[in-house]
Amino acid sequence: KGLQSSTKHVGPPLLTVLQDLGNIQNSKQRALSLFEWMMSPIKLADFFSNIWEKKPALIKRHNTSYYNGLFSTSEFDRILKEDNVQFGVNLDVTTYTDGKRETHNPPGRALPLVVWDYFRNGCSLRLLNPQAFSHTVWNFISVLQELFGSMVGANTYLTPAGTQGFAPHYDDIEAFVVQLEGKKHWRVYKPRKKSEWLPQFSSANFTDQDIGDPILETILEAGDFLYFPRGFIHQGDCLPDAHSLHITVSSYQRNSWMDLLEKLMPTALRVAAEEDIEFRRGLPLDYMEYMGVQNAELDDARRGIFLQKVSTLMKKLADYAPVDAAVDQKAKGFLHDCLPPVLTPDEKSHSVFGAPVKWDDGRVKDSSLQVGKDTKIRILRGNIARLCSERDSCLMYYSTENSRVYHKEEPKSMEVDCEHVDAIEYLLHSYPKYVIVQDLPCRTLDEKISVATILFEKGLVTTKESLNATT
Amino acid sequence: KGLQSSTKHVGPPLLTVLQDLGNIQNSKQRALSLFEWMMSPIKLADFFSNIWEKKPALIKRHNTSYYNGLFSTSEFDRILKEDNVQFGVNLDVTTYTDGKRETHNPPGRALPLVVWDYFRNGCSLRLLNPQAFSHTVWNFISVLQELFGSMVGANTYLTPAGTQGFAPHYDDIEAFVVQLEGKKHWRVYKPRKKSEWLPQFSSANFTDQDIGDPILETILEAGDFLYFPRGFIHQGDCLPDAHSLHITVSSYQRNSWMDLLEKLMPTALRVAAEEDIEFRRGLPLDYMEYMGVQNAELDDARRGIFLQKVSTLMKKLADYAPVDAAVDQKAKGFLHDCLPPVLTPDEKSHSVFGAPVKWDDGRVKDSSLQVGKDTKIRILRGNIARLCSERDSCLMYYSTENSRVYHKEEPKSMEVDCEHVDAIEYLLHSYPKYVIVQDLPCRTLDEKISVATILFEKGLVTTKESLNATT
Amino acid sequence: KGLQSSTKHVGPPLLTVLQDLGNIQNSKQRALSLFEWMMSPIKLADFFSNIWEKKPALIKRHNTSYYNGLFSTSEFDRILKEDNVQFGVNLDVTTYTDGKRETHNPPGRALPLVVWDYFRNGCSLRLLNPQAFSHTVWNFISVLQELFGSMVGANTYLTPAGTQGFAPHYDDIEAFVVQLEGKKHWRVYKPRKKSEWLPQFSSANFTDQDIGDPILETILEAGDFLYFPRGFIHQGDCLPDAHSLHITVSSYQRNSWMDLLEKLMPTALRVAAEEDIEFRRGLPLDYMEYMGVQNAELDDARRGIFLQKVSTLMKKLADYAPVDAAVDQKAKGFLHDCLPPVLTPDEKSHSVFGAPVKWDDGRVKDSSLQVGKDTKIRILRGNIARLCSERDSCLMYYSTENSRVYHKEEPKSMEVDCEHVDAIEYLLHSYPKYVIVQDLPCRTLDEKISVATILFEKGLVTTKESLNATT
Amino acid sequence: KGLQSSTKHVGPPLLTVLQDLGNIQNSKQRALSLFEWMMSPIKLADFFSNIWEKKPALIKRHNTSYYNGLFSTSEFDRILKEDNVQFGVNLDVTTYTDGKRETHNPPGRALPLVVWDYFRNGCSLRLLNPQAFSHTVWNFISVLQELFGSMVGANTYLTPAGTQGFAPHYDDIEAFVVQLEGKKHWRVYKPRKKSEWLPQFSSANFTDQDIGDPILETILEAGDFLYFPRGFIHQGDCLPDAHSLHITVSSYQRNSWMDLLEKLMPTALRVAAEEDIEFRRGLPLDYMEYMGVQNAELDDARRGIFLQKVSTLMKKLADYAPVDAAVDQKAKGFLHDCLPPVLTPDEKSHSVFGAPVKWDDGRVKDSSLQVGKDTKIRILRGNIARLCSERDSCLMYYSTENSRVYHKEEPKSMEVDCEHVDAIEYLLHSYPKYVIVQDLPCRTLDEKISVATILFEKGLVTTKESLNATT
Repeated sequence: KGLQSSTKHVGPPLLTVLQDLGNIQNSKQRALSLFEWMMSPIKLADFFSNIWEKKPALIKRHNTSYYNGLFSTSEFDRILKEDNVQFGVNLDVTTYTDGKRETHNPPGRALPLVVWDYFRNGCSLRLLNPQAFSHTVWNFISVLQELFGSMVGANTYLTPAGTQGFAPHYDDIEAFVVQLEGKKHWRVYKPRKKSEWLPQFSSANFTDQDIGDPILETILEAGDFLYFPRGFIHQGDCLPDAHSLHITVSSYQRNSWMDLLEKLMPTALRVAAEEDIEFRRGLPLDYMEYMGVQNAELDDARRGIFLQKVSTLMKKLADYAPVDAAVDQKAKGFLHDCLPPVLTPDEKSHSVFGAPVKWDDGRVKDSSLQVGKDTKIRILRGNIARLCSERDSCLMYYSTENSRVYHKEEPKSMEVDCEHVDAIEYLLHSYPKYVIVQDLPCRTLDEKISVATILFEKGLVTTKESLNATT
Repeated sequence: KGLQSSTKHVGPPLLTVLQDLGNIQNSKQRALSLFEWMMSPIKLADFFSNIWEKKPALIKRHNTSYYNGLFSTSEFDRILKEDNVQFGVNLDVTTYTDGKRETHNPPGRALPLVVWDYFRNGCSLRLLNPQAFSHTVWNFISVLQELFGSMVGANTYLTPAGTQGFAPHYDDIEAFVVQLEGKKHWRVYKPRKKSEWLPQFSSANFTDQDIGDPILETILEAGDFLYFPRGFIHQGDCLPDAHSLHITVSSYQRNSWMDLLEKLMPTALRVAAEEDIEFRRGLPLDYMEYMGVQNAELDDARRGIFLQKVSTLMKKLADYAPVDAAVDQKAKGFLHDCLPPVLTPDEKSHSVFGAPVKWDDGRVKDSSLQVGKDTKIRILRGNIARLCSERDSCLMYYSTENSRVYHKEEPKSMEVDCEHVDAIEYLLHSYPKYVIVQDLPCRTLDEKISVATILFEKGLVTTKESLNATT
Repeated sequence: KGLQSSTKHVGPPLLTVLQDLGNIQNSKQRALSLFEWMMSPIKLADFFSNIWEKKPALIKRHNTSYYNGLFSTSEFDRILKEDNVQFGVNLDVTTYTDGKRETHNPPGRALPLVVWDYFRNGCSLRLLNPQAFSHTVWNFISVLQELFGSMVGANTYLTPAGTQGFAPHYDDIEAFVVQLEGKKHWRVYKPRKKSEWLPQFSSANFTDQDIGDPILETILEAGDFLYFPRGFIHQGDCLPDAHSLHITVSSYQRNSWMDLLEKLMPTALRVAAEEDIEFRRGLPLDYMEYMGVQNAELDDARRGIFLQKVSTLMKKLADYAPVDAAVDQKAKGFLHDCLPPVLTPDEKSHSVFGAPVKWDDGRVKDSSLQVGKDTKIRILRGNIARLCSERDSCLMYYSTENSRVYHKEEPKSMEVDCEHVDAIEYLLHSYPKYVIVQDLPCRTLDEKISVATILFEKGLVTTKESLNATT
Repeated sequence: KGLQSSTKHVGPPLLTVLQDLGNIQNSKQRALSLFEWMMSPIKLADFFSNIWEKKPALIKRHNTSYYNGLFSTSEFDRILKEDNVQFGVNLDVTTYTDGKRETHNPPGRALPLVVWDYFRNGCSLRLLNPQAFSHTVWNFISVLQELFGSMVGANTYLTPAGTQGFAPHYDDIEAFVVQLEGKKHWRVYKPRKKSEWLPQFSSANFTDQDIGDPILETILEAGDFLYFPRGFIHQGDCLPDAHSLHITVSSYQRNSWMDLLEKLMPTALRVAAEEDIEFRRGLPLDYMEYMGVQNAELDDARRGIFLQKVSTLMKKLADYAPVDAAVDQKAKGFLHDCLPPVLTPDEKSHSVFGAPVKWDDGRVKDSSLQVGKDTKIRILRGNIARLCSERDSCLMYYSTENSRVYHKEEPKSMEVDCEHVDAIEYLLHSYPKYVIVQDLPCRTLDEKISVATILFEKGLVTTKESLNATT
């Protein structure tokens, strides 16, 4: 059940960690590095082998400043003042008292005066998607999502001393609880039955009678960390002497084999029926006489034959399953779910976002900079773009024009010329290595420069050297 | 390619055949008997073993009156006069001239004056669903549908001498062409390629270049018969000396194993995910790096492992497939597609439709007749009702309140008390044997009588003896 | 309050009346004649001057057979047996007991056994739109609708002795209650307040406390008649010794000046704004400061000026009102609401419906009959077609292809060539006089024959002489 | 045609003007002051009497810096860099060359590199709703909207030297063209015909042949100003020697008497029909015989009577028109259209937005400040809130929670207790005077404080003195 050493666990401050990430060339390595810092001293190999999707893990660090800089109540206060936080949309006001869970959201904008009044009166404050308001949380999560291949989300929870804001329940996500301020008493319980391990959907609220005894009970203090898989019931309440602020980072919602199979099966069946006449033959004339729920108890030899035939066909389906196409559907969904990347200063200055072109003194300056045959380029991040084929065309989906607000933008894609497909694949597979434009697998130099320019102007590639007008 | 004897083939007239069917107790036997008459002298066992879904069959009877009474141009004329036949809805006016297929439907009701004018000018007339207008066709088809367990449909085609109404094409149904009047030159062609054998959807119109040489070419005369499976291309044109009228009876549209699997797979997946945690485990963190169309050419060992895992899960699905529930979905669709039954005089007088209750001389007479404990009942026909479970309730679907017009009525069902399920199953399985009400497997006599009465009042059961008020 | 003479009032039987109508050339005269028979001995001039929309009228005829042939419980019984009457759609089963109004419709088809069981247990049976099932009621109403220029509807009510089926209420239609069998105790009450005279919508159910004392109380016997305007509250209950059957014929639902103005105002405003700049000028900059509900009590001179301006503009609207176009909208609605006409034998034989063309002995006979330059034609009925302009085209709406079931068909219309508009107007205005085709105001004889042929083939005109093939 | 003096026209810089507005207590006075500065030296009284909605006006200031600070190409450049400007949503790239108007928007975000490339190639750039990106434009327009009682909008237009971006056309708004940089050659033309004066909708693009000769032709230079009413055709093109940047401020779209009448007529008709039986009486039985387009030429006395009746009823409608309720509908639309106000520092510190409550050192500070009986309050601005009655409840609509992006938020309102209506009306009518809470017309002091607190917490009122925790 995790690490509970009694000595202080130290590590570099978050801002240093984030800055250092800029020196790592590969976005997945960046993500691993950040995740390791969050989970430290747990080793990642150990985590993914023995803990992930299996059991809770707890880290007591005796170091209240470990996570400093990620998020704070002061930043929450600033957000309330400066941003348009809406009750019920971005912020929930809740209580859980005497076994009763209530939501108290008034309509409209959540202004500090009103929000703090609820808090003083014992209400918990859940800020949804703090990444839309906090630049650091946005950065933190946009880095992590390169690791998971599944949307990474977050909520923050601010709870007054001596209160509880939520009933016991389980969620449909892997939960990483990062204690930021104060302390909180946590209890975690095993899934109640086999079918509730790794569930597809979150539970309703439970009562204490429903859930048995906790398998883990602890007091999280600032700097501590708690992980538990989806399906593990949990509840947390504040001690009388301290408020609590934590952020829960989450992932792997609807990201199981079943979710892939849901996309795969209909196309597998369509392909099988096209290729294999067995699937197209008529059903037996008399099958309704012995099949169907009303005949389930019948002792009829034809039932066995029918069931055997269905089973054979179902197993043959595997031979026709277009798995890559189904993965593309998942990938498209993931790219739509993603946060847009937060660029490092270096990434910015080597991309279209830092191009020196500007309006100056009544005219456009430096607009002539161009991608050339010798320019070295690579995709901005490993996971920000993906080639998918759809019917007769080839589309590139990308996450860079997403909004910080979940699904505020439609999925973004651009059609790709057949002649450019190989070049883009080459670029995607070369990451994190740079590619010289003239090495792109296109027929002509013009096409090589054209595809590189399109990607550069969309902000999807960075150059090794800064472009400048005289190149 | 069928039977082409040179001697006249005789058989009983249709009206006699239909009348005699009333003496057969089992609706499926009735259907077999009628189908045998239609196909005679082909033996049914031979047909279903060697011809059905495999190749065309032709019967030349040298007996122009064999099918007399089924349908005629005179009846078509009467229908135009008396019924509200709508161009484009019930009747299509078509030509196929110099390789060009055209439809000439004006809007509105098809009145004889206008319809016959088109005909005189060389247009073919296709009457859709003649069962909605012709009592005999309705009867004929409603009997046949007890055999097929799949909707039986029909169209009639009236073609002027020396013309052709339709381009070469293939259909998505098994076609039984019954030549009623005149004669027609037919050509049938093999499916063009493997994937067009037993196709799920009809083809577009072909040109002569598309289709090669016919495998069967003949002149159908009144009394002749032609069968070909879905996917076989065909065209027919009239000789200069005679018009042609035929009816095409059809079945097995969207009734293949694939159509069953389409209903089965989503529930199989849902059940599997509930019962087997393997389906609920998360996808590998890194699967998007090597899976997907952009990675299909990658030489990466992880691809093999991933594909193997998908294949294993797909094959395991077969263990969880709720086949009977999927068959119920097909059965519900079939019951919705069915024509309502045409009752024989005997069926009528032993059912609620012939109950003697009536308004007479200012009061209700004979309304006291009742189903009692000794009443012997059976389901009206083998295929008119079906018990299906849906979520937590049990529904009985039935076809008796359908319209003669395709899908004009919503699917009809009634909720069944849990206490009545066994009794109804017992009734369904006992068919065609009568059951004594007191033998129904219910707890109390009241319940036995209640379930019998409900079914009787809905017209779903007939009694062996006529009920009368004094019973 | 009507005529309550104590002597028997006699008149010709309905079938004779309907037959004689065929001799009247003008459909409106036919309607007047039939309406007069229904209301006899009330004079129509008196009715429309002094009673219509003003007060109830009662006729006691002492002649139980006066309305014989219009509808009967026996016919209702036959309809239940032969037609697909659906509970809740075509038939309502109701009770009103101890001040409580209930509906008892089970789902599905209403079979005699079940319906009569309800009746024997004290339920009232309301058959909606009996014109869809009864040929005589259809004929009766389709004749009357030529008089009203507003949909004529009907319901029948069959009530067991000693019961009441409906709570006191008022309707939104002019009601003509025709007592067909048995007797019923009726009470009619004045509208409760000014705003409920001639209301636009029907009331909810009232209690006895709501409605005061009746202004008319009577026992209707077979052959009697009762009229009351919309808004008059009413209730009827059966005496212990007799059941009751009546039919309520209705009209003038949503057919008031207001209903016309609703269609007129938006177009009047659009025309005014196009033609008169006063409507397009901007509102005063400051009007929100003194207008609006929050300022309604303000003592501000600008309010008076503003209100005066609005009033002036509203009054100017009348100058721009396209009244004829609004009437056309009403007319289109009326033609959609109408029953299709029931043709007299004579009308049939002089129209497309009686054209001798037919299939005979293997070929089309007599299909060459044609409208010629000397053919005399007239519109089938005064009210079955109407020319309306819509945007840039001219449409003729007609009721002849409507269904006997209310609004089962979409509104029917055909586009009219500009060159044919005058000819059709001429035909419409000439009714009931016949017009010689060559007198139609078209440029060429071909066009004259063309427009006449189109109308003839659509069944919209009859010819004076039967067409025959040699003309 | 405006003022074309040859001497330099000077005025205070915009930032000074905006700052000074904070000293004006009444938001409408602020708006007048700002509008006067924009139009200076035209006098407002003269403008609204003689020019507004009548003819163009031109001011040549010979002072290129007059409008400095409102908007600039540099700010546009900054917006492209920092904000998510979307082609087609926020920015249009257009050309008008050889009489052909084209739009060149690619999909996705508009990044400087790409935008400036279009510009260098001769494309015009129209930034829609710059108020969503520029704080000064937002402030400018949110002040002006207090004057117009109709949405105030804006677009900016940046045009390369020697090009034209738009075809000649007219708009549906009053246009205030403020030249910010460079110069532009303008031509303005009279409406082509009577019905195009003050039109309800914008025109399509015209060709030069369509529009005749200009009535005003000039070269606008930075600091100059041009007004023209809706319906006046216009086009502008750049001289070879200079680019042009201008902002067009607009208002009075769909804000004419007709727009009010559109909302008024249906309710007027409903009220009239409730109160006046004349509207509810049935139409004449025979009106379809002489009315309608097909009868428009008929010489029938009944037509005159019918038309007279309609005219009388239409004129009576004015007596029943609920004008204040219709104005409320307009007011609700206006409040939805409005920009949220930009608060002055003083307004902020005297409202909920500047309340000192905050999170400090682990706890909430100063949250106890409260509105008390002696607090002096007033509505934040004259036009930000409005009481409207809807059915049986009273709602207060307000603009303070709108988005800077047009209609991104739904209309905002709160239900008002009946007991609070008088107090809120009192507050609205007292503006710009402060009201002491205990003077509010409520029954109890608690209610007075309650209504004041609700409005304060919503940000709808400011206090004369800053609240502090010890009050």
